[in-house]
Amino acid sequence: MKSRAAVAFEAGKPLQIVEIDVEPPRKGEVLVKITHTALCHTDAFTLSGDDPEGVFPAVLGHEGAGIVVEVGEGVTSVKPGDHVIPLYTAECGECLFCKSGKTNLCVAVRATQGKGVMPDGTTRFSYNGEPIYHYMGCSTFSEYTVVAEVSLAKVNPEANPEHVCLLGCGVTTGIGAVRNTAKVAEGDSVAVFGLGAIGLAVIQGAVQAKAGRIIAIDTNAEKFELARQMGATDCVNPKDHETPIQEVIVEMTGWGVDHSFECIGNVNVMRAALECAHRGWGQSVIIGVAGAGKEISTRPFQLVTGRKWMGTAFGGVKGRTQLPGMVEDAMRGDIQLAPFVTHTLPLERINEAFELMHAGESIRTVIHY
Amino acid sequence: MKSRAAVAFEAGKPLQIVEIDVEPPRKGEVLVKITHTALCHTDAFTLSGDDPEGVFPAVLGHEGAGIVVEVGEGVTSVKPGDHVIPLYTAECGECLFCKSGKTNLCVAVRATQGKGVMPDGTTRFSYNGEPIYHYMGCSTFSEYTVVAEVSLAKVNPEANPEHVCLLGCGVTTGIGAVRNTAKVAEGDSVAVFGLGAIGLAVIQGAVQAKAGRIIAIDTNAEKFELARQMGATDCVNPKDHETPIQEVIVEMTGWGVDHSFECIGNVNVMRAALECAHRGWGQSVIIGVAGAGKEISTRPFQLVTGRKWMGTAFGGVKGRTQLPGMVEDAMRGDIQLAPFVTHTLPLERINEAFELMHAGESIRTVIHY
Repeated sequence: MKSRAAVAFEAGKPLQIVEIDVEPPRKGEVLVKITHTALCHTDAFTLSGDDPEGVFPAVLGHEGAGIVVEVGEGVTSVKPGDHVIPLYTAECGECLFCKSGKTNLCVAVRATQGKGVMPDGTTRFSYNGEPIYHYMGCSTFSEYTVVAEVSLAKVNPEANPEHVCLLGCGVTTGIGAVRNTAKVAEGDSVAVFGLGAIGLAVIQGAVQAKAGRIIAIDTNAEKFELARQMGATDCVNPKDHETPIQEVIVEMTGWGVDHSFECIGNVNVMRAALECAHRGWGQSVIIGVAGAGKEISTRPFQLVTGRKWMGTAFGGVKGRTQLPGMVEDAMRGDIQLAPFVTHTLPLERINEAFELMHAGESIRTVIHY
Repeated sequence: MKSRAAVAFEAGKPLQIVEIDVEPPRKGEVLVKITHTALCHTDAFTLSGDDPEGVFPAVLGHEGAGIVVEVGEGVTSVKPGDHVIPLYTAECGECLFCKSGKTNLCVAVRATQGKGVMPDGTTRFSYNGEPIYHYMGCSTFSEYTVVAEVSLAKVNPEANPEHVCLLGCGVTTGIGAVRNTAKVAEGDSVAVFGLGAIGLAVIQGAVQAKAGRIIAIDTNAEKFELARQMGATDCVNPKDHETPIQEVIVEMTGWGVDHSFECIGNVNVMRAALECAHRGWGQSVIIGVAGAGKEISTRPFQLVTGRKWMGTAFGGVKGRTQLPGMVEDAMRGDIQLAPFVTHTLPLERINEAFELMHAGESIRTVIHY
């Protein structure tokens, strides 16, 4: 079938809106009509060419919502008409990782997903007869996309897809990092580095967890108003201080914060986030995705004196079992998604959405098909 | 009073056995007659001059056992005749850290202890009228030493002091890291980097925790026999492999180990230990003390894919409340201390004990006064 899509033909070039060919779903696969997609920095990172795993041409996009159109052989968990959110972190329920109960990092489709192909090693997308690669198992920048069954969360059809598409990545990651990875408890102090969608979601998660002090940190002071609206108790701009930001936070709090979150992808900020964690028990969660080859560093003394350094992918959320509940949370208003949607645009103007993101003017631009 | 002591007059020079003057204990202090002391790499590190906090002249030593001789004003928890183990990690029970229930890193005497003085800012040791500094709040290389009350664990007087002095540092650190920091569970896999006293204690702790596979790693294959006796299931010499040791361990185990422990103080080994931890949930505990200014590094991807990096000091053990129980464990044989005591020497030959340690010939040399 034909599908409108925004294709990344080359690294570093704008996406091109073209009509591609989409093959029917094969065994264990599902054809989904994407109704809404947002974009996040990971898409931009891959598009830039800096992602060593990036392959081109590809249909990017991994934060979307849609409706099942057709299912392949053996698919039983979804049927045409079901509302779904594609998952870049699959959940097969059967691999070592799913069965462990300790992590959401399912490996069912990991190897092929990283190469931009379906589990059988081939692509369902083509343009003028040439294959186009998939991306993060989702490829939500095509109106019709093919996704592995294990990479689909079935959600309440009453949910607003313009909002819940954001649960496909950023918001879930931020809230999940608070709930599942850090396990913030009532009264705990929190520092959030970077006030994009993930950082704002961390603030929401911290408020839900009844955190005490929530310190929001960004070099762009224009982000502070929304951060305060969401529940930040303090906003700090590192540019206003001559001392390193970790020292500022430690001074503000006495011994540092119980939990810190790096929501940018900058290895220097990751270090600052660790080093502002409380002596004895503070923990720091890396959420941001760093550039290729970048490394984090610190003095081991920071860990020996009780700090823990950890990270999270998709907020530790098991997509198929836990995401439907987060959609319900959003429908009840326990997770607020509307404030994240600062812009909406049609697919044809998706490159403007990247520009808005790079300019720091949008939190999320939602693309309507 | 007069006391025989091995004094570090200068960095990088052998200790000198001299008779020093020891003042009576002041308020909150206790005079202890040390009967046995061992030495560990931290003493050697400070003696070398590489420890930026090292002050000279000083009475080193922090792994000892003794008997209370005299108590200062206000001391109520110990009395003359009590058998005690000096603690370099105090436990006041009243500071933010003690009260947290989350850490053993008491701050009651931390600031002054780091400067080599008693909590009132002065020293109790002198030689020819010149002050001699304390060390780690213990100074067990003097037959008579003065220690803060909060830095003394009262232990069973029936315990063999030649053995339980080792609970003053290395063995407690290793076992505690397994019990309190990593919380190893039945069936878990463990990798231990470095087979000195701490590494061997980690193996003992892992056996007690009913770990499954226990992989012992050292570049000195002569350590393997004792490691196996203590319960290591596999012994690996990185020199036997061309690939980095973390890759060797991951290959041996499929996805890495549930817990790894760095018991050396080498930042490159710390990285290897982290990177051989299991994807999704593996955790790596830094126990070794790295050289001044050294930093640990890794790709943040290691943490984002579920590994946790942490550290421990004194194995997370709260000395006054938990060490007496570990002494009981040793008396029952649940902690085996005899295999650690490879040599015994009189105080006068303490410099030979350092030589044995540097040559890798001893696990622990216990000094008898």
